[in-house]
Amino acid sequence: MLKKRLFTPGPTSVPEEVLLEMASPVMHHRTDEFIKIAGEVFEDLKYVFQTKNDVFIIASSGTGAMEASVVNFLSEGDRVIVISGGKFGERFKDIALAYKLDVIPVELEWGKKMSTDRIKDLLEKNSSVKAVFGTLCETSTGTHFDIKCLGEIVSHYENTLFVVDTISSLGAIPCLTDEWKIDVVVTGSQKAFMLPPGLSFISVSEKAWKKAETSNLPKYYFNLKKYKKTLAKNDFPFTIPVSLVVGLRKSLNIIKTTGIEKIWEEHHLRGEATRQAMVAAGLKLLSESPSDAVTAVVLPEGIDGEKLVKVLRTKYGMSIAGGQDHLKGKIIRISHLGWQDEFDVLTAITGVGVGLKEMGCEIDIEKGLSVARQILFPSQ
Amino acid sequence: MLKKRLFTPGPTSVPEEVLLEMASPVMHHRTDEFIKIAGEVFEDLKYVFQTKNDVFIIASSGTGAMEASVVNFLSEGDRVIVISGGKFGERFKDIALAYKLDVIPVELEWGKKMSTDRIKDLLEKNSSVKAVFGTLCETSTGTHFDIKCLGEIVSHYENTLFVVDTISSLGAIPCLTDEWKIDVVVTGSQKAFMLPPGLSFISVSEKAWKKAETSNLPKYYFNLKKYKKTLAKNDFPFTIPVSLVVGLRKSLNIIKTTGIEKIWEEHHLRGEATRQAMVAAGLKLLSESPSDAVTAVVLPEGIDGEKLVKVLRTKYGMSIAGGQDHLKGKIIRISHLGWQDEFDVLTAITGVGVGLKEMGCEIDIEKGLSVARQILFPSQ
Repeated sequence: MLKKRLFTPGPTSVPEEVLLEMASPVMHHRTDEFIKIAGEVFEDLKYVFQTKNDVFIIASSGTGAMEASVVNFLSEGDRVIVISGGKFGERFKDIALAYKLDVIPVELEWGKKMSTDRIKDLLEKNSSVKAVFGTLCETSTGTHFDIKCLGEIVSHYENTLFVVDTISSLGAIPCLTDEWKIDVVVTGSQKAFMLPPGLSFISVSEKAWKKAETSNLPKYYFNLKKYKKTLAKNDFPFTIPVSLVVGLRKSLNIIKTTGIEKIWEEHHLRGEATRQAMVAAGLKLLSESPSDAVTAVVLPEGIDGEKLVKVLRTKYGMSIAGGQDHLKGKIIRISHLGWQDEFDVLTAITGVGVGLKEMGCEIDIEKGLSVARQILFPSQ
Repeated sequence: MLKKRLFTPGPTSVPEEVLLEMASPVMHHRTDEFIKIAGEVFEDLKYVFQTKNDVFIIASSGTGAMEASVVNFLSEGDRVIVISGGKFGERFKDIALAYKLDVIPVELEWGKKMSTDRIKDLLEKNSSVKAVFGTLCETSTGTHFDIKCLGEIVSHYENTLFVVDTISSLGAIPCLTDEWKIDVVVTGSQKAFMLPPGLSFISVSEKAWKKAETSNLPKYYFNLKKYKKTLAKNDFPFTIPVSLVVGLRKSLNIIKTTGIEKIWEEHHLRGEATRQAMVAAGLKLLSESPSDAVTAVVLPEGIDGEKLVKVLRTKYGMSIAGGQDHLKGKIIRISHLGWQDEFDVLTAITGVGVGLKEMGCEIDIEKGLSVARQILFPSQ
């Protein structure tokens, strides 16, 4: 039997109880029953976002919410800083350019750390910057950025918003929206939220709402004023994917019951175990500042990552991700997101090890697994 | 026991086999398995759209696809005709205005027919019109518009696109995209497609693609060029709601196996039975040109439609829709969309009759039901 396992950084596995919840008969979105569910969901999202701000739900992939974070708070020609250390940072830049913003790009080598001093400096020299766009975890490289420090820096500028893409990381690693002074946080359903793709979420601070008043970029579907108006009635401006929202209530319930701090800790343990296992096995990590959401592993010269991904998928039912753009074939990415436990981590490490061995790569799986096991089961 | 029944014009009921299909473990969207499913779905959508043009899938509500139909093919200041006979026609106008198009509004009284001569006349007098926006079935009034005739008229203008919102009607009533010369057809998953909300579909003609080349409206998430590029590989530019697509394959399979003509015929029968039953029972229809997708019934003076909707829902588990905007409380709307059969129609008529009786309305349910039964089961 070929059991399928998802270790891709989205979509991630969905708990059986959430899948079954979503298979309930479809309900109408303007019934009291559904409005009650929506109310719970809006409340619980605030908990996961660690914010008192409203969190909106959009029927779109995460990119839709990224676009919303641009078109609602800025105006044509506005100068913005976009920090980009991978594929998804670049997406922010592309969206900003599509709407004719004046982009100051801060382009980092993929996998490298960000110098917060550089941003500080840029802000000092460009007082007219209207927003800084950053990423909490760059999915394409598995890199964690110091959003807390950036939030502190940007908060000194009363006319500058801080917008963060947390698509592959919110609910997996700490993102203290209010404490870190992030104005707009963007994320999606198919990562740490343990749901299929189809919903995106976005939180908006008071400071951001003020900018929304003067924003002149054209928008309709992503116009958050419409979402704000309906939110007051736990409703949505456009027909929402009811099944996904019903599933979301269930998965938010799991998150709340477990406790978000506990979930962060578990992701950290899974990330740490994977990283140390890979290094112990003789491989290198791509990122200088690895994220607990996803681990990017550099493959030895001559080993084709695309082929490894394919072998694992077809022969062992295991889905991991390969590299994107210029990293295609050169790295693999193993996700620690969402509905996973310690045994899953050992399974992923074993799978990658077996696949690499089969491709003729000299690695020490036993050593990797032993290191991981000690991290995951320290009392044993 | 309170059994729940959906007679709302979206969301509509989803067949159990589709619900269960969607509850399968989530698969990655870039696997061969999923790409094969996507390929089938893209092909089958063309059948339902009755087109040879590509049909794209967007993760959004139908409104997202409406926005896509504006931003991809037009440029700032372009003159467009928007025909609006209800809430959703107005939405097209609002989107066009949000993007600073020069809108010639053709506003019809809600429920009234459209004079195609008026459009012909407008086009003759305004040769610079770049697009005509119409609606196949206006959901807010249950009105069917003569899109075939309009398509013929618009097709004589080589610089004018014909864009049609078929959100509540495609797959329920005939929409012969190619034969009727419609350039852009927009629809959603939660109506005749027997799926939950969360996907929208849009077909694009060669004539429309030509206009896309010069369109200067800002766009990113709804930029159909991105969707066209990935379609060639049966892929999507942004993470697609995989569960919904898996469900879509199943529901398209049901549609294909049944045959689209048969499905149109069944909708027609359900619509006809409901309309004649309502009239026989002593009620009036709102629309001059009623659609087989949804029937709007005018309530007698003094009967509160909102209350009727509430009574049916809470006491009998039956969801029908009320009126929108100035028709709020004055009409009810009964959908014939998607996963319904003859017995469901009789159930809906009975429910509405019982609810109205309880509210003190003098109607003849027996007569209505008898008329409907003869239409639905003519051989009996």
